Amino acid sequence: MNHLDVQNRRVENGFRLTRVGVTGVRKPVVVQRNGRHNHVTALIDVFVDLPSTQKGSHMSRNVEIITEMIDESVREKVSSLEELSGKVCRELLDRHEYASYGEVNMVADYFLERVTGTGRRIMEPYKLMARATAKRGNGLMKLVGVEVEGMTACPCAMESVREQLEQRSPGLSEQARSLPVITHNQRNRTTLMMEVPEHVDIEADDLIAIVESSLSSPTYGILKRDDEAKVVMNAHENPKFVEDVVRDILGKILHRYEDLDDSVHVTVRSESEESIHKHNAFAERITTLGELRASDDQ
Amino acid sequence: MNHLDVQNRRVENGFRLTRVGVTGVRKPVVVQRNGRHNHVTALIDVFVDLPSTQKGSHMSRNVEIITEMIDESVREKVSSLEELSGKVCRELLDRHEYASYGEVNMVADYFLERVTGTGRRIMEPYKLMARATAKRGNGLMKLVGVEVEGMTACPCAMESVREQLEQRSPGLSEQARSLPVITHNQRNRTTLMMEVPEHVDIEADDLIAIVESSLSSPTYGILKRDDEAKVVMNAHENPKFVEDVVRDILGKILHRYEDLDDSVHVTVRSESEESIHKHNAFAERITTLGELRASDDQ
Amino acid sequence: MNHLDVQNRRVENGFRLTRVGVTGVRKPVVVQRNGRHNHVTALIDVFVDLPSTQKGSHMSRNVEIITEMIDESVREKVSSLEELSGKVCRELLDRHEYASYGEVNMVADYFLERVTGTGRRIMEPYKLMARATAKRGNGLMKLVGVEVEGMTACPCAMESVREQLEQRSPGLSEQARSLPVITHNQRNRTTLMMEVPEHVDIEADDLIAIVESSLSSPTYGILKRDDEAKVVMNAHENPKFVEDVVRDILGKILHRYEDLDDSVHVTVRSESEESIHKHNAFAERITTLGELRASDDQ
Amino acid sequence: MNHLDVQNRRVENGFRLTRVGVTGVRKPVVVQRNGRHNHVTALIDVFVDLPSTQKGSHMSRNVEIITEMIDESVREKVSSLEELSGKVCRELLDRHEYASYGEVNMVADYFLERVTGTGRRIMEPYKLMARATAKRGNGLMKLVGVEVEGMTACPCAMESVREQLEQRSPGLSEQARSLPVITHNQRNRTTLMMEVPEHVDIEADDLIAIVESSLSSPTYGILKRDDEAKVVMNAHENPKFVEDVVRDILGKILHRYEDLDDSVHVTVRSESEESIHKHNAFAERITTLGELRASDDQ
Repeated sequence: MNHLDVQNRRVENGFRLTRVGVTGVRKPVVVQRNGRHNHVTALIDVFVDLPSTQKGSHMSRNVEIITEMIDESVREKVSSLEELSGKVCRELLDRHEYASYGEVNMVADYFLERVTGTGRRIMEPYKLMARATAKRGNGLMKLVGVEVEGMTACPCAMESVREQLEQRSPGLSEQARSLPVITHNQRNRTTLMMEVPEHVDIEADDLIAIVESSLSSPTYGILKRDDEAKVVMNAHENPKFVEDVVRDILGKILHRYEDLDDSVHVTVRSESEESIHKHNAFAERITTLGELRASDDQ
Repeated sequence: MNHLDVQNRRVENGFRLTRVGVTGVRKPVVVQRNGRHNHVTALIDVFVDLPSTQKGSHMSRNVEIITEMIDESVREKVSSLEELSGKVCRELLDRHEYASYGEVNMVADYFLERVTGTGRRIMEPYKLMARATAKRGNGLMKLVGVEVEGMTACPCAMESVREQLEQRSPGLSEQARSLPVITHNQRNRTTLMMEVPEHVDIEADDLIAIVESSLSSPTYGILKRDDEAKVVMNAHENPKFVEDVVRDILGKILHRYEDLDDSVHVTVRSESEESIHKHNAFAERITTLGELRASDDQ
Repeated sequence: MNHLDVQNRRVENGFRLTRVGVTGVRKPVVVQRNGRHNHVTALIDVFVDLPSTQKGSHMSRNVEIITEMIDESVREKVSSLEELSGKVCRELLDRHEYASYGEVNMVADYFLERVTGTGRRIMEPYKLMARATAKRGNGLMKLVGVEVEGMTACPCAMESVREQLEQRSPGLSEQARSLPVITHNQRNRTTLMMEVPEHVDIEADDLIAIVESSLSSPTYGILKRDDEAKVVMNAHENPKFVEDVVRDILGKILHRYEDLDDSVHVTVRSESEESIHKHNAFAERITTLGELRASDDQ
Repeated sequence: MNHLDVQNRRVENGFRLTRVGVTGVRKPVVVQRNGRHNHVTALIDVFVDLPSTQKGSHMSRNVEIITEMIDESVREKVSSLEELSGKVCRELLDRHEYASYGEVNMVADYFLERVTGTGRRIMEPYKLMARATAKRGNGLMKLVGVEVEGMTACPCAMESVREQLEQRSPGLSEQARSLPVITHNQRNRTTLMMEVPEHVDIEADDLIAIVESSLSSPTYGILKRDDEAKVVMNAHENPKFVEDVVRDILGKILHRYEDLDDSVHVTVRSESEESIHKHNAFAERITTLGELRASDDQ
C-alpha cells in the first residue's frame, strides 16, 4: 500500500457513511434546448457513499468530474441541468470504485420570457433544481424541480371582511356586492419537484407553467398602471390558501402526466410570506403519482 | 522589543487602516430597563483604527473587552444595547493605546407585548440595532436603531383598480363607492436609526412605536377572524407607498424629538416586498434634524 | 355549516396534504435545567397534516398554541426545547381535531461556559435544534440536536507536505521529523441529532461535548498567545477528515448510549469550510443505533 | 392634473428623499470583452432621489429602463457591468425628470480560468460589483469592484508555536528550524472597489489579480495531492494578517494605478473566517489615491 494514499487506508473501527462529498461548488453551465442556449450559474453538491473499510473519499475526484463534464457539455450538448447531473452521477460511480451510491444536486437562476396583461415582454426569474441519484447496478433516477414566486390572496380574510362590511352597512346593493372584496395578499414561493427514471423526460418549463397558473396570480417585473390593476383584480378573483395552491398543482400534475408510472415521486411546497403576519403560511405534499391516483386521496 | 509580539512590530511600508477588528461575535446579553430584564442574543462587531506604523491590531483584546463588559453588565446594570456598546467602545480606546477611533455594532432580536384589535396579547418580534463610535479625545456618539416588520397597501394600484371598476360598471352608487377598494399589499421592513451624543437618551421602544404607526398597518402573530378583517381594513384605509412610510416617520421624528440638537443624524429606510413583483420597493432618507427642520425640505 | 368558516368547508377535488402550518415564528423562550435559566430566542415551525375532505387548516390555532405553551412554560417549568416542542405538538393534535400528524421544529442560539487551555472562561456559542412529531394514537417522538463549530486539520495534505519536505531535504533528522507538519485547517460545522421516544432523556450538552471532542480541536472566542499556540498544536496532533469526525462521533454515541434502544435514529453531518478551496467538504451518516451496532457496519 | 397619477401629486408635508427605487431585480446580462462573452446573472438595485414636492417616484420606470438597456446591450455591446450600470443610470435621470441623483448597483457571479501549481486548468468563481452614480449636470462616477476568496495563514500563531516548540525541545537544529511551522489558516474573503469618473477604465480582472496575489495563497477548485501540498506550503511561506492583506493591496493599487487622479476612491476590506475562533477577523481601508500617496500615510 502506498503509505501516502491516506484515503485508501483501511480503518480499524470504521462505520459506513451515507454521503461524503463536496458542497457549494459554483460553475457556469450552458444547456441547449429548443434552439435556445441557457447560460446559468449552477451551485453544485455531489456525494457518494463510503464503505466502513475505507478511510476517506477521494474528494478531488468530485470536482474533477464536474469540471470535465461541464467542459464536455459544450461539445456534446446537454439539454438540461438534470441531464448534466445524470452524467456527473454516472461518472461518480465509475471513479469512486468503492462507492455503491452517487448523488448530484444542482440549483440555478433561470429566466423565461413572459407577457404581461397589456402585452409587455419581460424576462421573469425562476429557480431550477436538478438531482440525479444512482445505486450501483440499478438505473439512474433524476429529479426535475422549479421554484416560482407569485402572489396569493387570502380567501378567509376576504370572507371576514365581507361579513364585517355587511354588518356595517346592512342591505348592500347587488352592485356593491359584486365588487371585489379586499383581503391580504402577499409574495408566495412555491416549489414543485418530480423524480423520474432517467429515460423519462420532464420539461422544467412545464412545471413552471403548472405552478404559475395555480397561484392567485403570477407576478411580473414590469407593470404599468393598467397591468397592475389587472394583476390585482386577477389575484382577488382567485383567492387561495397555500393549501389550495398545492392541491391545484397536484390536480394539474395528475392530468398532465397521466402517462407516467405510479412510482413517480412528486413534492409540492408552497409558502406565503403573509402580509398580516411576520411569519409564513406553509403547505406541502410529498407523494407518488400512484398515491394521488388512488381514489381515497380525493 | 519582544520579538514574539508580531502585532507591535513596526512596518516598513505600512498604510493607516480605517477599521480593524472582529466580526460575528455572538453573546448573551441582559439589559434592564423599566423594571424588565431583557435577555437577548447579540451579534457584535468591534473595530479600532490602526496607525501606519503598527503591524497588527491586538484582535484578542477585542473579545476580552466584550466578554468582561458583558459579565460586568450583570453586576452593574446596563439599560440598553447602546449603553453597553458605549462602555465597550470606551474600553477599546483604553486598551488599544495606538488607536484613535473605536466602533462597536450590535444587533439583536427583541420582543414587545402587543394587543390585537380584539384584545389578544402577544409578544411581537423586532430587531434592535446599536452602535457606539468614538474619536480619542472627543465624546462618544451612540446610534439607536430598530427594524420593524409590518404591512403596506399600495395607493396607486388602488386608484387604478377604482378606475377600472368604474369603467366596467359606470354609474357606481354612492354605497358601492364607499366600499374599500382592493389593491396589492405586502410585508414591509422598515429601519429607523438615530445617532446622538452619549448623554442623550433615545428609547428604542419609542422608535418602534413611531415606525409601526407609520405603516399601512402593524401586523400580529395571532389574528382570529375578526382581528384579521380589522387589520386588512385598517391597511386599506391607510394605503402607503414606501415613500409615504419614510416621510411619515420623518414628520413624527421632528415632532417627538423637537428638543434634540440640529446635529442629530437620522436614517430611515423602508422596503416593501411587493406582492405583485419579485423585487422590492425601497425608499430612504439619510439626514440630520437640522436639515429636516429647514423650511426648504418641506 | 357556518358559511364563514372557510377552512372547514368540504372540498370537491381535495387531496390529502402532508404538512400544513406556519414557519418562521420567533419567540423568547425560557428553559430551566440544572438550576440554570436559559433565555433563548427560538425560531419555530409547526405543522399538522390535512385530510382531503377539509379545505383549510386553522393556521391561527398554531400560533395560539405556541404562545400559550410558552407563557405556561414560565409557570410550569420546561427543561428543554424538545420538551416544549413535545407539549406544543400534543396540543396541535388536540386542537386540530381533523389532523392525524403533528410536528414542531425549534432552533435557537445557545451558550456554554468553556475554559481555554490557559484557564480563561468564556461563553461559547452553539445552536440547539429540537423536534417533536406525533401520529395520533401513537406516542410522541422527540429529536434533540446540536450544531457545533470547531476546527479540522487535513491529514492528507499533512502527509503530502511531509513527503515533499523529505524530497526537498533528504535525510531529515529524528528531531526534524518529530516536529508538527503544516497542513490546511479550517472552520468546521458539525450537526448531531438523535431521535428518541418522548420518555427518553438526551442531554443536549452531552451531544455538544461528543461533537466538540471529535473535531481536530474545539475553538474559543478568546485566545491569548499561549492559548492560540495550544489550539493550533492540538489541531495538528489530531488531523481529521470530515469522514473521521462523523465516525468518531458515531463511535462515541454507541458507547455513551449503550442503554438506548436499537430503534433510536442518529444523524451526523460534518462540513469543513476548506481553506484551500472555495467549496466545502461534507460527510454524513443517517442511521439507527441498531444498524450501528450490527457487526457488518464496522 | 390627472387624478389617477398618484405619484405626481404634490404633497403637503413632504420631505426630500435621498434614494427611492427598486431592489433585488434579477436579470441575465451578457458583457463582451476581449473577445469573450460573459453571461452573468446580475442582481440589480436602482435608485433616484425624490423632491419634497412629489408624492411618489415612478417605480415601474426603473425596471423598464433596466429591461430596455439589457435588451439593447445585446445589439450594442457593453463591455462591463459598470458600463451597463452607467447607461442605466443616465437613463434614470432622463426619465425621472424630477430627480437630481441616480444610482445603479449590480452584483454578479463571475469566473476566470486559473491554472494550479501542477498545471490543471479550472474555472474559479469570483464576484463582480458595479455601481454608477450621477448628479444631474455633473458627470457620471462608476465603481468597479471584486470579491475574491482565498486563504490566509496567521503569522502570530506561527511565532507562538515556534516559541513553544523551542521551549519544548531546546537546541533545535538548523535543519529543524528551517522547516515550515504550523499555524491556523482559513478561508478569507476580500473586497476591492475603486470609484472613478466614467471615462476612466479599470479592468475587474486586474483587481482580482491584485487581491489574489495579496493573500497568503490563492485557492483552487481542483487540487491533486501535489497541488494541495504546494498551496499549503505557499500559504505558510506567506503568513498574513487581514491587516497585511489590505496593506499589500493598497501598495499594489498605488503602483498599478499611478496615472490615475488623486480623487479616485479606493475601498479594501478583508475578512478571515478564523479557523481557531467562531468569529471573523476584519480589516478595512476607505481612502483616495491622493491620501495613499501622501507621505504621512506610510
